[in-house]
Amino acid sequence: MTSRVHGPGAHGPEVRGTGAARLPTARGAADEPPGASGAPALSGGTAGPAALEPLLRTVLAALAEGAGRRGGPVPATTPGELAAHVAEEFAAASGGEALHRLTKLLAYGGADPADPSCAAHLHCPPLAVAVAADLAVSALNPSQDSWDQAPAATELETLLLDELARLVGYGDEAAGVPTSGGTESNLMGLMLARDRVLGRASGRRVELGGVPRSGPRPRVFASAAAHFSVRRAAALLGLGEDAVVPVAVDHGLRMDPDALAGALKRCVDGGELPVAVVATAGTTDTGAVDPLRACAEAAAEAGAWLHVDAAYGGGALLSDRLAPLLDGVELADSVSLDWHKLGWQPVAAGAFLVRRAETYASLARRAAYLNPRDDEEAGYPSLLGLSLRTTRRADAFPMAVTLRALGRAGLGRLVDACHDLALAGAAAVRAHPRLELHHDPVLTAFLFRYLPASGPEDPGRVDRINAALRRRLLRAGRAVVGRTELPGEGPGRVRLKLTLLNPYATPADVERLLDAVAAAGRAEEEEAP
Amino acid sequence: MTSRVHGPGAHGPEVRGTGAARLPTARGAADEPPGASGAPALSGGTAGPAALEPLLRTVLAALAEGAGRRGGPVPATTPGELAAHVAEEFAAASGGEALHRLTKLLAYGGADPADPSCAAHLHCPPLAVAVAADLAVSALNPSQDSWDQAPAATELETLLLDELARLVGYGDEAAGVPTSGGTESNLMGLMLARDRVLGRASGRRVELGGVPRSGPRPRVFASAAAHFSVRRAAALLGLGEDAVVPVAVDHGLRMDPDALAGALKRCVDGGELPVAVVATAGTTDTGAVDPLRACAEAAAEAGAWLHVDAAYGGGALLSDRLAPLLDGVELADSVSLDWHKLGWQPVAAGAFLVRRAETYASLARRAAYLNPRDDEEAGYPSLLGLSLRTTRRADAFPMAVTLRALGRAGLGRLVDACHDLALAGAAAVRAHPRLELHHDPVLTAFLFRYLPASGPEDPGRVDRINAALRRRLLRAGRAVVGRTELPGEGPGRVRLKLTLLNPYATPADVERLLDAVAAAGRAEEEEAP
Repeated sequence: MTSRVHGPGAHGPEVRGTGAARLPTARGAADEPPGASGAPALSGGTAGPAALEPLLRTVLAALAEGAGRRGGPVPATTPGELAAHVAEEFAAASGGEALHRLTKLLAYGGADPADPSCAAHLHCPPLAVAVAADLAVSALNPSQDSWDQAPAATELETLLLDELARLVGYGDEAAGVPTSGGTESNLMGLMLARDRVLGRASGRRVELGGVPRSGPRPRVFASAAAHFSVRRAAALLGLGEDAVVPVAVDHGLRMDPDALAGALKRCVDGGELPVAVVATAGTTDTGAVDPLRACAEAAAEAGAWLHVDAAYGGGALLSDRLAPLLDGVELADSVSLDWHKLGWQPVAAGAFLVRRAETYASLARRAAYLNPRDDEEAGYPSLLGLSLRTTRRADAFPMAVTLRALGRAGLGRLVDACHDLALAGAAAVRAHPRLELHHDPVLTAFLFRYLPASGPEDPGRVDRINAALRRRLLRAGRAVVGRTELPGEGPGRVRLKLTLLNPYATPADVERLLDAVAAAGRAEEEEAP
Repeated sequence: MTSRVHGPGAHGPEVRGTGAARLPTARGAADEPPGASGAPALSGGTAGPAALEPLLRTVLAALAEGAGRRGGPVPATTPGELAAHVAEEFAAASGGEALHRLTKLLAYGGADPADPSCAAHLHCPPLAVAVAADLAVSALNPSQDSWDQAPAATELETLLLDELARLVGYGDEAAGVPTSGGTESNLMGLMLARDRVLGRASGRRVELGGVPRSGPRPRVFASAAAHFSVRRAAALLGLGEDAVVPVAVDHGLRMDPDALAGALKRCVDGGELPVAVVATAGTTDTGAVDPLRACAEAAAEAGAWLHVDAAYGGGALLSDRLAPLLDGVELADSVSLDWHKLGWQPVAAGAFLVRRAETYASLARRAAYLNPRDDEEAGYPSLLGLSLRTTRRADAFPMAVTLRALGRAGLGRLVDACHDLALAGAAAVRAHPRLELHHDPVLTAFLFRYLPASGPEDPGRVDRINAALRRRLLRAGRAVVGRTELPGEGPGRVRLKLTLLNPYATPADVERLLDAVAAAGRAEEEEAP
């Protein structure tokens, strides 16, 4: 193993097609950090792979060492102790050993979703094949904002998005783009909705964007359990966070379709403008899937755009068993999907899709240096008008490779395995005398809580114990369990959460995790009786 | 070399701490793609590195093969032919050979910024050490939206952002976050400006976002050469693209400070509200740096926010020679930096900084499942309120490693090498009888054009020849040269562009590139006399 930063010899004339390599300045200047006396190599060209090889070995060794030192899902330490350690290491890292030292630190101080006791968030353990594909993206560094920065990557992205559109049930008129995740996808859906619906109402050209200063007040409808990014998007878009009308949910956090119909009717009757309905396919906390077909009907009747946030639940489309949950998603005007959740990709692997490409109008832009008209007429395609970003990493590539390597069926088996695990985990909670299940799992997550010996009578105390036992498990490096609050007001709403995304975890792993939760709960009771 | 997708054996009990690995379903189902009969391995845990190793070898081999087949900066083909080839390969890729086949395709069909003849865009050849660090991020998959998904990565990001703030000249009150690039950073700056200035004017709570429907019309000021993402941000934010007032520029595309002062005065006198001034430190086309100190004074006098888009020019802060160009940047309320431009990082390596953390108010959010109050009180820090995103890759890590491996001085030498190269290239253009230089380089880019034998008399023809010669160079796989248009109206504004970001390219490389441009120009003249 070596962690030396490689000099220009490894870079060499093959890349440059010219004579001897040239150092940017003379070697050995006084301010040079140790180990950097050779000019650092590039990752590209025909010589890049050879320059990368020893550095990648350094990284793999450091990852293994760091994970070994961690010895569990998360380091057994407090945030303050870890911060001090990280600051020390970051200050000490220098020159040729920086890569090894900081990678080992990152691995030691990680919360590793590949550990069966790390089950808090929609934070999946990536597949090795996807991570390897991601390396190709970093090394070549294509940028999707113009063809001449990403010729093949432009085409691959288009082909992958076509496949994802078919997975959703969209027809040939669909279009889409990779995103950084559900938050960006939700923003895009609401932006297109705003520009289309407000443009229609005000006669303003959609590509100008903006919110008219007169006319009916625009409104967005989403369930009380919808992701907070919906409200954040409304704030960002100039509609204001208070433009979002929360719609009631049932016990499992699924939107009540009658409540939606009623809210839309009151909006129209009150002289306001329903711009969009956001339905959630897979809420963050319970995996609940809103009634998509009913939402589509209600939105269409009110003249509103339907956006489906399937960042989590979109993974169900990979599974024959679970896909029926998303019945009606093909009626949505736009959809958010996240393959870094139920898709085992490294972050970021979001995708945003629209049913009809024409509704992308308000994002279209022409930049003379990126997509001049005559280049497009000469056959050079441009993805610029599909994204909110300009420079954009080829995040479609790992997903494209994974889809071809495993097939939909192979990915579907991973989804089903996690679903099975959630069912087994929920059964174990039910069977446990001190754990209380909130609901049956829909996808791969469920909420529950620890009940102290005294029962649920003092709801504030139950909340405090559950919150504290979770931190206790973190400090001990024993487990990473989720924690959330049910919608509503007042105490008694804190719940713990397991989000099961590791297809190789077993029911026995989950039972051990639940036992650790109960033990931590008992310890909290003893400390604060 | 092997490209087999690895089975659970490579994953193994070390990760899981339990007994034998479990396949998600029985092997050999009829719908399984070839090569995927073993369950695919994960990248994490102590066993992840061993599972990754053969896959990374596959990727390195495929990258080298693809680059060799390409044999130049870009494949010698038309977009149509390439699209057909990519579609064929994507359809054929399957199972265990998908990673190799598609990686080779990505490399063959790449526009490789490590080739000295690829010099069109702010699209840098990444450093191998940064790419290796990026692998660690993909393999561990931390997500920066909560501490319990990224304990060490949370601290490292905070430390790196502190260092970047000091580089800008900010004090201890600064704060910031990695972004996907200048477009997202510019959006953030304008969002905070909107919420702060409009909040002050209207009394509305800033965290609600939104644009008041009454009161003076909000306006944004940016030079006519500012990046199009400023107008796009105004559209997204609900201000409308037409809220942006373009300010006049000089020949080199630098903002005229008197024109800015006049425009701000007219705005205030006309009863409108100046929300923000966007100054550019390094325009995309000429690298021009607006007069930052004068912009800061004008903005302060008008009560407007100053955002400095230093996505390109921020790299000058790494160089003792060029840093004085950014004098006054420390007065900005917010700044965009992009280390995937003059910083040799793989995309995405943007950073957004504010001078005073308190101005981040309108992004603050509390999500019960990510940053509950009692966890923060118990010492668990949260970065959630710093970003527009929720799930967020640890993009700070490669930059942190690079900064420690090379030091500011090491990176500064790379900046200076590219600046030298631009000066040499501009001199070569001046010396060439058929090339016309638009301006002297400020950073590492310059504009020029080919002049046909008949001279510049028919400006429309000169435009067409320059646009066509660029496509001719692409089709031949000979060079990737930029193309843009000067601000204004009418023909004669098309210019070619070299953006020199390869520190190992030589003046001789650039001269050969310019000779190729001239030869392609003559060929166009002959074909369309």
